[in-house]
Amino acid sequence: MAETNRQVHLASRPKGWVSEENFTLVEAAVPEPAEGQVLIRNHYASVDPYMRGGMNDVASYRQPFALNATMPGRTVGEVVASRLDGYREGDFVFAMTGWADYGLASDDGQLRRIDPAQAPISYHLGVLGMPGMTAYVGTYDLGEPKAGEQFYVSAAAGAVGQVAGQLARIRGCRVIGSAGGPEKIAWLTGELGFDGAFDHHAEDYTEALDRLMPDGIDVYFDNVGGAALDAVLARVNMNARLVECGMVSQYNLTTPDGIHNIANITRNRVRIQGFIVSDHADRLDAFLDEVSGYLRDGQMHYAEDVVDGLENTPAAFIGMLKGENTGKRVVKYV
Amino acid sequence: MAETNRQVHLASRPKGWVSEENFTLVEAAVPEPAEGQVLIRNHYASVDPYMRGGMNDVASYRQPFALNATMPGRTVGEVVASRLDGYREGDFVFAMTGWADYGLASDDGQLRRIDPAQAPISYHLGVLGMPGMTAYVGTYDLGEPKAGEQFYVSAAAGAVGQVAGQLARIRGCRVIGSAGGPEKIAWLTGELGFDGAFDHHAEDYTEALDRLMPDGIDVYFDNVGGAALDAVLARVNMNARLVECGMVSQYNLTTPDGIHNIANITRNRVRIQGFIVSDHADRLDAFLDEVSGYLRDGQMHYAEDVVDGLENTPAAFIGMLKGENTGKRVVKYV
Repeated sequence: MAETNRQVHLASRPKGWVSEENFTLVEAAVPEPAEGQVLIRNHYASVDPYMRGGMNDVASYRQPFALNATMPGRTVGEVVASRLDGYREGDFVFAMTGWADYGLASDDGQLRRIDPAQAPISYHLGVLGMPGMTAYVGTYDLGEPKAGEQFYVSAAAGAVGQVAGQLARIRGCRVIGSAGGPEKIAWLTGELGFDGAFDHHAEDYTEALDRLMPDGIDVYFDNVGGAALDAVLARVNMNARLVECGMVSQYNLTTPDGIHNIANITRNRVRIQGFIVSDHADRLDAFLDEVSGYLRDGQMHYAEDVVDGLENTPAAFIGMLKGENTGKRVVKYV
Repeated sequence: MAETNRQVHLASRPKGWVSEENFTLVEAAVPEPAEGQVLIRNHYASVDPYMRGGMNDVASYRQPFALNATMPGRTVGEVVASRLDGYREGDFVFAMTGWADYGLASDDGQLRRIDPAQAPISYHLGVLGMPGMTAYVGTYDLGEPKAGEQFYVSAAAGAVGQVAGQLARIRGCRVIGSAGGPEKIAWLTGELGFDGAFDHHAEDYTEALDRLMPDGIDVYFDNVGGAALDAVLARVNMNARLVECGMVSQYNLTTPDGIHNIANITRNRVRIQGFIVSDHADRLDAFLDEVSGYLRDGQMHYAEDVVDGLENTPAAFIGMLKGENTGKRVVKYV
């Protein structure tokens, strides 16, 4: 066991874009578990768009993250000491220990054992974890895609988008995705089986959607907001459903973009539904059954974008917010 | 019977604000009913916000109105000649004969007999007609207001808004309305029993909603869009429902306002639902039963704003779009 526990602390709250200067690397002693706790050596930490919101000092659907404390977040790792019934050294677990080499966890409803034989343990930060379930609830429960419908997903090469698009394809939709850069586009239309994809760095949303979705949009799974959302609102079909999962294009703006094509909501009877996956915990078993089945039988593919080293977590997080990852970004600590 | 049939024609399509110059008054012969038709002397014509959309030459949820033809619209009047089984001279009817002294109607699913003893016939253009049913479906079916919730309705002194606010009050909500001018505000908080109201000409939406809705907004019945919608999005409670009935503030703009507080849709799990009352025809009987009951037992009040004379229909319509009416605006032809 290492002598020290490196932790990435939130040092200051960003105004606008996050920078590495908002974080500091702190070395502390490896903690010892109290009665009812396990000590976990983290193998992977997750970096996710929602974390940008926690860095602000405003009431939102979650408490702001504390300053001068370890950045909270999802992790998977190995139990290295246990004083909690039901857990022992060598168990692999999912927990919320944050950006640190080691963390303590108790039986708080988040900690759970995972089976390294079932899937790579990091999948529990992605396709079999919160992002995958977000895609599942958003696409199936809220988007209600029907065979033959036109389905568009933005940030389609990300943790949630790749799963959402494939779920819609499995339901028989015509699926179009957008992402940044030609490699992602090739991957979406290749391995993932999307019907089309475009690079939003190379082509305006308006032009690309005119080109790729001439029959309009029935379901939009929104991960980015901003110009993509406005372009979609200009092209919504009757009774279109817009699933508002996230708006990563807006999180680092001090003044959010204006959305202009709002009147089509009324004109075309559009439903826009914001959601948080934690409100849909009753869907966990159905999600795990269905999505793990698609992974096993090869109907669904899953890509990770792995960055090495705890010290690189802030840069990995910032890069993810800028869209540099193809697939779910995780940071490998061991 | 008059010798001529005056008709208001759509002469040109407005760019931006409608003006009286977009209309012409035409005198024609009074038509004669063919077999299967009735000739109706129109007593009242309705002027409604949705008509602004029909004046544009763009595909929308309805066909554009034809140029150089009578402006289509809802009317109530008296049958003066009948060649349609089941209708005879002296019957009062609702029909879609438009802005003219006389019109022909057939058994097309719109024409129906109305009972002048049950309510003033003009009520079938308002509280017992399309606007009332719009308020009913939007408030109850889509807004799903619960007792104790915070309910806000814009254009609250209009045809739809006055009914929506009272329906929410009847369900036990705390109801706040906005309208233009102190007389409307006094009427909303007086006769209509709203818990509060503000004059959007005198006070910003943001300030007024901070003042009158310090506990946030659970249901917003939107008739105006624009700045009101943006102010609401900044103040939505968790799981708020926004019912998008109309956006009258936007209909005469060539560039619509930008909406900036969109990210709260995701953050606060907001549902925004656009709708068209004609999709909800199955609710007609429930609507008529319930709302006519509230009118009879005095739980609901209803105000009309009556303009006299067919030749004044264009000005009455434009004034309604500008918000000068208190209550449902109708134009009295007889």
